[in-house]
Amino acid sequence: MATLRVPPAVPSPQEDCEQLHKAFEGWGTNEKLIISVLAHRNAAQRKAIREAYQATYGKDLLESLLHETHGDFEKIVLLWTLEPSERDALLANEAATKWHPTNRVLIEIACARSSQDLFTVRCAYHKQYKRSLEEDVAAHTKADFRKLLLPLVSAYRYEGEEVNMHLAKSEAKLLHDKISEKAYSDEEVIRVLTTRSKPQLIATFNQYNNEFGNPINKVLKIIYFFFFFLSTHSLILSLALNISSSQDLKSDPKDDYLAALRAVVRLICCPEKYFEKVIRLSLNKLGTDETALTRIVATRAEVDLKLIKEVYQSRNSVPLENAVKHDTHRHYEDMLLALLGSDQN
Amino acid sequence: MATLRVPPAVPSPQEDCEQLHKAFEGWGTNEKLIISVLAHRNAAQRKAIREAYQATYGKDLLESLLHETHGDFEKIVLLWTLEPSERDALLANEAATKWHPTNRVLIEIACARSSQDLFTVRCAYHKQYKRSLEEDVAAHTKADFRKLLLPLVSAYRYEGEEVNMHLAKSEAKLLHDKISEKAYSDEEVIRVLTTRSKPQLIATFNQYNNEFGNPINKVLKIIYFFFFFLSTHSLILSLALNISSSQDLKSDPKDDYLAALRAVVRLICCPEKYFEKVIRLSLNKLGTDETALTRIVATRAEVDLKLIKEVYQSRNSVPLENAVKHDTHRHYEDMLLALLGSDQN
Repeated sequence: MATLRVPPAVPSPQEDCEQLHKAFEGWGTNEKLIISVLAHRNAAQRKAIREAYQATYGKDLLESLLHETHGDFEKIVLLWTLEPSERDALLANEAATKWHPTNRVLIEIACARSSQDLFTVRCAYHKQYKRSLEEDVAAHTKADFRKLLLPLVSAYRYEGEEVNMHLAKSEAKLLHDKISEKAYSDEEVIRVLTTRSKPQLIATFNQYNNEFGNPINKVLKIIYFFFFFLSTHSLILSLALNISSSQDLKSDPKDDYLAALRAVVRLICCPEKYFEKVIRLSLNKLGTDETALTRIVATRAEVDLKLIKEVYQSRNSVPLENAVKHDTHRHYEDMLLALLGSDQN
Repeated sequence: MATLRVPPAVPSPQEDCEQLHKAFEGWGTNEKLIISVLAHRNAAQRKAIREAYQATYGKDLLESLLHETHGDFEKIVLLWTLEPSERDALLANEAATKWHPTNRVLIEIACARSSQDLFTVRCAYHKQYKRSLEEDVAAHTKADFRKLLLPLVSAYRYEGEEVNMHLAKSEAKLLHDKISEKAYSDEEVIRVLTTRSKPQLIATFNQYNNEFGNPINKVLKIIYFFFFFLSTHSLILSLALNISSSQDLKSDPKDDYLAALRAVVRLICCPEKYFEKVIRLSLNKLGTDETALTRIVATRAEVDLKLIKEVYQSRNSVPLENAVKHDTHRHYEDMLLALLGSDQN
């Protein structure tokens, strides 16, 4: 369900290199040419182009792209050109070392990649940063977030389809008991979410819904609204008392932690819905959130962006491309549309 | 520094299979023939023999070995014949599902294998048990042990030689502060021990020794003796009061946890000393601990058993082979001596 469109007759890596070199030559840069090559090659083909470019011109293609492109276009071209594991390692490093509780990148990488892909990211992390991913995550996070994130990024979940229904029942009850006690960071909750296989967790979540009458995610959401209500209430109170509490409202650790738990559940059950929401929120903002939009398009174009687009259309009654055209401009817009499978190439 | 001796001219896997088949034929089993073949082949050669055996006789060599051998000899032959990752997965599964706080097998596998080898064990675990290693460890362990073991078995430590001396100093101080407070299971202590690279940890432990005048392991040991003193004291007291506390003395969770921490430190700094001690204790017991002896010989013969033998000789003033001859018998003894590199083949 990828949106990436590769032409039926792909030029050789050498020919692609020559085109890219031509795009960089002289005054200005031919961004359209860059897009027509790179946005229509898969990961293996882009890797071959980088190798051929290094062999022919004696430097890394990424260096030339860094020199020849700018702004949001530069960011998406660089991110896209990287191998998926290098790209995830880069995103994970940024998220870990500049850790903020509202950042969901580590959860996306830990939960929306296959077990083998997550391991490949950890290998790439060693190579790029001379440290381990879990080492940086552990060193920069704290308290409940560390308890959740460390096993998430270290996981190598079993990927077979086998489901133990007895276990699903007992762990649905366990989750329900803990959620009822508001013990969201209880080590048993974290154990279940971070170690069980995805099919097993989906069975557990279904069991939760059947047994207790609410999807687990909604339960966490109701609690979220409850907290939101409290926050709003305290805002009115503080406004009345002339106390600014905007900082508290921006990021409530308990609230952020619940949102992180919801992200884990959604990324395991329905990654396309999770990613659609991130894109929707990135476009609905006053001032587009290009960082989020770039990340989701670059990381999902070869995976499930077609599915994400379908969910977007159905949720917003407008094609994602239209929203992108409305909110972005020039080469950045062109690159996004190309990766969304909607350019003329 | 392996003890495994492979002959200069190795027969083909097919020839080895025929020899093994001959060893199984007729009344009784020719154990000497089994030893002369299997105890002198490396992991890749044993794998090729198993494949050839399956192709020729239509069954797994392990099945035939299980049928034809018995007792301790059976256990060591089976364990040795497995691929190293399968063997570790088997040992880890047994240790996790029959978890006991005095069991050190999970720590041995997590700390004395390379990062890649530990990952290969996790892959073999998926294949053999249809679950993940960390899933079973998390489901069967509790409290402090889970906090320590889960990140240990999930680790993919960086393996470069780079050391950050500034970090070594600050984390040596952190460990010292926590140990002074007796906060042995503090999440910062566990974070350092389970995520930092081995060269980084060795630098941290050296720094600890330089700065605070005691090797970290001895400090944990002094505290251990302190607990032991308390236990002895309470034993005398309970004997005086005619209360049996032998069960309590056998396994004190705090004591076991400290011993586990020491095992982590020793396996990172000097695995050969750790393994020598396990072998020494297995032989010094009233009634040899064949389980431990078999495990260490089978898992280290292709790695560092030569080094372990040297440490043993130097620590006990007697060659390990002599102690093994004294404590074991018949085919089990022959197999151990062959793996120790001391048979006639």
